[in-house]
Amino acid sequence: MKTLVINSGSSSLKFQLFQMPEEVLLCKGLVDRIGQKDAQLSFKNLRDEKSLNQELEIQNHDFALKQVIKLIEDKQLGVIANTSEIQLIGHRLVHGGTHFSEPIILTDEVLEKIDEVSTLAPLHNPHNLKGVKVTQTLFPKATQVGVFDTAFHQSIPEKAYRYAIPKKMADENGIRVYGFHGTSHEFITHQTSDFLKKPLNQTSLISLHLGNGCSMVAVKNGKCIDTSMGFSPLDGLVMGSRSGDLDPTILLFLQRELKMSLEEVDHLLNKKSGLIGLCGTNDLREIISLEKDGNQDAKLALEIYCYRIKKYIGAFLAVLGEVDAIVFTAGVGENAAIIREKSLEGLEHLGIKVDSEKNQQANGEENSFHSEESKISLLVIPTNEELAIAKASYEILKK
Amino acid sequence: MKTLVINSGSSSLKFQLFQMPEEVLLCKGLVDRIGQKDAQLSFKNLRDEKSLNQELEIQNHDFALKQVIKLIEDKQLGVIANTSEIQLIGHRLVHGGTHFSEPIILTDEVLEKIDEVSTLAPLHNPHNLKGVKVTQTLFPKATQVGVFDTAFHQSIPEKAYRYAIPKKMADENGIRVYGFHGTSHEFITHQTSDFLKKPLNQTSLISLHLGNGCSMVAVKNGKCIDTSMGFSPLDGLVMGSRSGDLDPTILLFLQRELKMSLEEVDHLLNKKSGLIGLCGTNDLREIISLEKDGNQDAKLALEIYCYRIKKYIGAFLAVLGEVDAIVFTAGVGENAAIIREKSLEGLEHLGIKVDSEKNQQANGEENSFHSEESKISLLVIPTNEELAIAKASYEILKK
Repeated sequence: MKTLVINSGSSSLKFQLFQMPEEVLLCKGLVDRIGQKDAQLSFKNLRDEKSLNQELEIQNHDFALKQVIKLIEDKQLGVIANTSEIQLIGHRLVHGGTHFSEPIILTDEVLEKIDEVSTLAPLHNPHNLKGVKVTQTLFPKATQVGVFDTAFHQSIPEKAYRYAIPKKMADENGIRVYGFHGTSHEFITHQTSDFLKKPLNQTSLISLHLGNGCSMVAVKNGKCIDTSMGFSPLDGLVMGSRSGDLDPTILLFLQRELKMSLEEVDHLLNKKSGLIGLCGTNDLREIISLEKDGNQDAKLALEIYCYRIKKYIGAFLAVLGEVDAIVFTAGVGENAAIIREKSLEGLEHLGIKVDSEKNQQANGEENSFHSEESKISLLVIPTNEELAIAKASYEILKK
Repeated sequence: MKTLVINSGSSSLKFQLFQMPEEVLLCKGLVDRIGQKDAQLSFKNLRDEKSLNQELEIQNHDFALKQVIKLIEDKQLGVIANTSEIQLIGHRLVHGGTHFSEPIILTDEVLEKIDEVSTLAPLHNPHNLKGVKVTQTLFPKATQVGVFDTAFHQSIPEKAYRYAIPKKMADENGIRVYGFHGTSHEFITHQTSDFLKKPLNQTSLISLHLGNGCSMVAVKNGKCIDTSMGFSPLDGLVMGSRSGDLDPTILLFLQRELKMSLEEVDHLLNKKSGLIGLCGTNDLREIISLEKDGNQDAKLALEIYCYRIKKYIGAFLAVLGEVDAIVFTAGVGENAAIIREKSLEGLEHLGIKVDSEKNQQANGEENSFHSEESKISLLVIPTNEELAIAKASYEILKK
């Protein structure tokens, strides 16, 4: 079955087309800068290894998807004769609130519920829903499935998801830990269980999704029990441009003493902080290279980034009990050996010991990099959120 | 030498009078509700075991201290014939910014510097300084010493004290981790070194100050390297009425969606959150009793309180390496066996094992409560911030 996976953002539309259940990726691409005259369209036919990059005016998501359909059907570049063959569409949806702990078929009722929680994810949900609307129009006969970034975290117990603010206010307004990157962490959990040849419900791990956004989860016997992200994707680890953990008083100080507006504070913490704030760039390859050249800001940025990870590893070990593995994934996690090494150094007393040589070679594919004395397996496992969405969508049809 | 220790708050003045270097407490007391018609004055003569509780109108800190002097000199109740014998006064000062990593004699220049950082501690420093002014007037010949709550934390390395916000903004405005309760944590560090009969510079520990305010520190070889409190005393653990750790986006949400003002957010997080927010009271004895009676909110409040502590223990173990001891102090830490038990349960894989019977009996005095298999010593050590201030003040005179 041809299964289209859609990740619709405010001004972008990412897609991948899979043949399921064979899990064969047929083509993928990205439309960026939607709404601009110089929008970018990139398309890659994986089967025949052909590709296209194009600059054109794209007014909206509807027009963007129409361009994508044209390319998928194109006689030269395309992978199928007619996109009406696409009977299943899986959508990445950021926020499901507390309604959804599993992927779900997107009926009108479900879409209303997702819209209801849009105040919790104003930067994401409305744009995700735009993608759903557009595919409903262009693929009226396909089944639309929503896969939530928050779903995997719905098993987090109350003692971990609740903030110490008035209970009534928290309950009435949905102020709690939700957690994000769930599709990736769940995928990693399954892959780890396979890699270790342990049943899922006996596999406990710490999963680190380190990309431009970064988060960690504690997984006990296959279920998520805690995460570093919280009410929003701003909390927790140091990220490309997001601050992560911060004393809440700092927000009061910025507004009172520096006379910043709410919008300025929001922009500062989400767009100008993290690695960019600390050393001027969020490109970790560049930061690593700057550090080698003796740049002190880059050195400090790396130290803080890894120090924060190390503290979360300790915190999660404390609440998990024995764990089987610590797993690194996503762009940075899969490819930056130095980040893995620095985050894990000095943890021998907790049963963690890196084999530096293996770590250097572990980049980019499923690999272990712990030394023989390590009690806990240390793994690199590439994430694949799109395949996870395709699989979850396909699973739901079979039910 | 008669040494007076002063802790001056917005509407209160606490004092203790010591004979140094013998460390004998002669008398102590509290003036509360300063500025009100029904201010409360309590005084205790420890030498002769006499005491007084009085309600009277006290307009200001100056008048309050004059009442205290009268009592100290009183023929019936007092402990010395003439307060001019008091040659040394130690002040608890909350915030020293980055200027002070040690106690210091309060010259005019020093007082100016303390005043400069008042924007960082608007609720504390101005009132602390009021106490200094009053004692300067009433004891013109005494040496005035300032002992800072932030000083012990000045050894925290940059990777731990820096937030991931723009470096320039942080440096120019002093936005960093300061840490508080430093006098208590430093005292506990010394006591632990003595208790374990290990040199201070070889003693590593996690110290938990659990009172109405709560904080934890990681001490490596006698030096503080990390703390749960941050830029302000709001961050970190769940406290009596303070939220502790919180996703910063929640502050944006409260202002945008719930239309709360900055002052309302401040009040909410500092006065209406923490244990009070979760279950309606910050009295831990009451909460423990409510939990026994099956109250679900009290049960949850205790769970969250201890879960947060457990995560910090893990985080600090990760950054410390091997540690000698985990030490509980202050009202809750010294007296609530159930809090110690719940915070430490399930940490056997990290070398921590409670002896429940010893734990029940450890309350209120220096005691260990780990089982024989525990790799890490578990201790209760009563804190004594006033004695620590008296000692620090006396030390400085000898230099």
